[in-house]
Amino acid sequence: MNHAPAPLADALPVVDPRQAEILMAVRQAFVEKGFDGASMQDLARAAGMSVGNFYRYFPSKAALIRAMVLLDAEEIRRDFGMIHAAPDPMAALRMGLRERIMGPTCSEDSALWAEIDAAARRTPEVAEAHRLIETEVRGQLVAVFAAATHLPIAEAKCRFSTHAAFLLTLFKAAACVHPGEDVDIAAIRAMIAETIDQRLDEILSSAAPAPD
Amino acid sequence: MNHAPAPLADALPVVDPRQAEILMAVRQAFVEKGFDGASMQDLARAAGMSVGNFYRYFPSKAALIRAMVLLDAEEIRRDFGMIHAAPDPMAALRMGLRERIMGPTCSEDSALWAEIDAAARRTPEVAEAHRLIETEVRGQLVAVFAAATHLPIAEAKCRFSTHAAFLLTLFKAAACVHPGEDVDIAAIRAMIAETIDQRLDEILSSAAPAPD
Repeated sequence: MNHAPAPLADALPVVDPRQAEILMAVRQAFVEKGFDGASMQDLARAAGMSVGNFYRYFPSKAALIRAMVLLDAEEIRRDFGMIHAAPDPMAALRMGLRERIMGPTCSEDSALWAEIDAAARRTPEVAEAHRLIETEVRGQLVAVFAAATHLPIAEAKCRFSTHAAFLLTLFKAAACVHPGEDVDIAAIRAMIAETIDQRLDEILSSAAPAPD
Repeated sequence: MNHAPAPLADALPVVDPRQAEILMAVRQAFVEKGFDGASMQDLARAAGMSVGNFYRYFPSKAALIRAMVLLDAEEIRRDFGMIHAAPDPMAALRMGLRERIMGPTCSEDSALWAEIDAAARRTPEVAEAHRLIETEVRGQLVAVFAAATHLPIAEAKCRFSTHAAFLLTLFKAAACVHPGEDVDIAAIRAMIAETIDQRLDEILSSAAPAPD
């Protein structure tokens, strides 16, 4: 089988456990004050550390944001690891996406992602990490599509790269739906999940016969 | 006919011409430095004004962002005015959306919108303007759907509010697709436009018979 892990996966640097712990502690400060609004002092305080000590772990705010993006990339890799290992990876992907989109954590990180998105447009270091994570996700999706359609990775990539990017776009859009008094967020997310399902069906319908 | 302009339209405050001129001049400064990164000094300089004079037009950065959002709302109202006046408003909407999504200006304002999105989460004044504009767009969309299906506004609202919010979400998502070496942005946007078309067809297929 030439399906599972996409080639770029191993290129992603890993965040060490102490850094990961600090990142968790400062998330809220970023959400409240924004990427530009939160000072290194604010962030060190949120982590319960001296500024000097904090700088030893993260020499700049851009380095910190970048590590945060990479930490999310690790979580995504773990999730895709489970999807690839499932008896029916496409069904596992479908279920995983739906659970994430409809579940309570969908909005949770979207404030932070809006910050990272804005920061990526200004800071090359953040943009690079952002680009890495998106390339990783699209590669993993194409690997699942290749397995589901019994197509070689290269052909799946050629045929379904746009589907992968479209799915990623919809997934992010689901997190960004703004609450409003006259907005039924659950209904909008259900429509997004349904749209994703239709595109996955489209991919499955172009499957080659299963090799045996 | 009880179709055209949605009720909330008249609630939107109007931006005066001199303010509009200043807003155009400072856009680029915001895109480059970000909402938090650009100081009032930076913005006054970009507008070629003294800081004191600048403050007479915009007492705070939040007031400025809010005016920027409202200026965009005015443009949107003009666009919808033309759509409502077209012989076939649904066809005009379809074409207008496709042109915007596939056209060269789609990415142009998306950096600014990412900033506004992030700012809206932190600044109530910006959030309120953001909410107004989204409510306006959804209301206008429902009015077009009502005209196209020959349904009363109230019933169209009940049946198609989720469609309207979904379309708005997809439209914003199209602007936010990030360029990347292995990403075919035009293909992704074409898939988004196709998805919008499918949802519009869905609405049309539930049309009541035309009254005569």
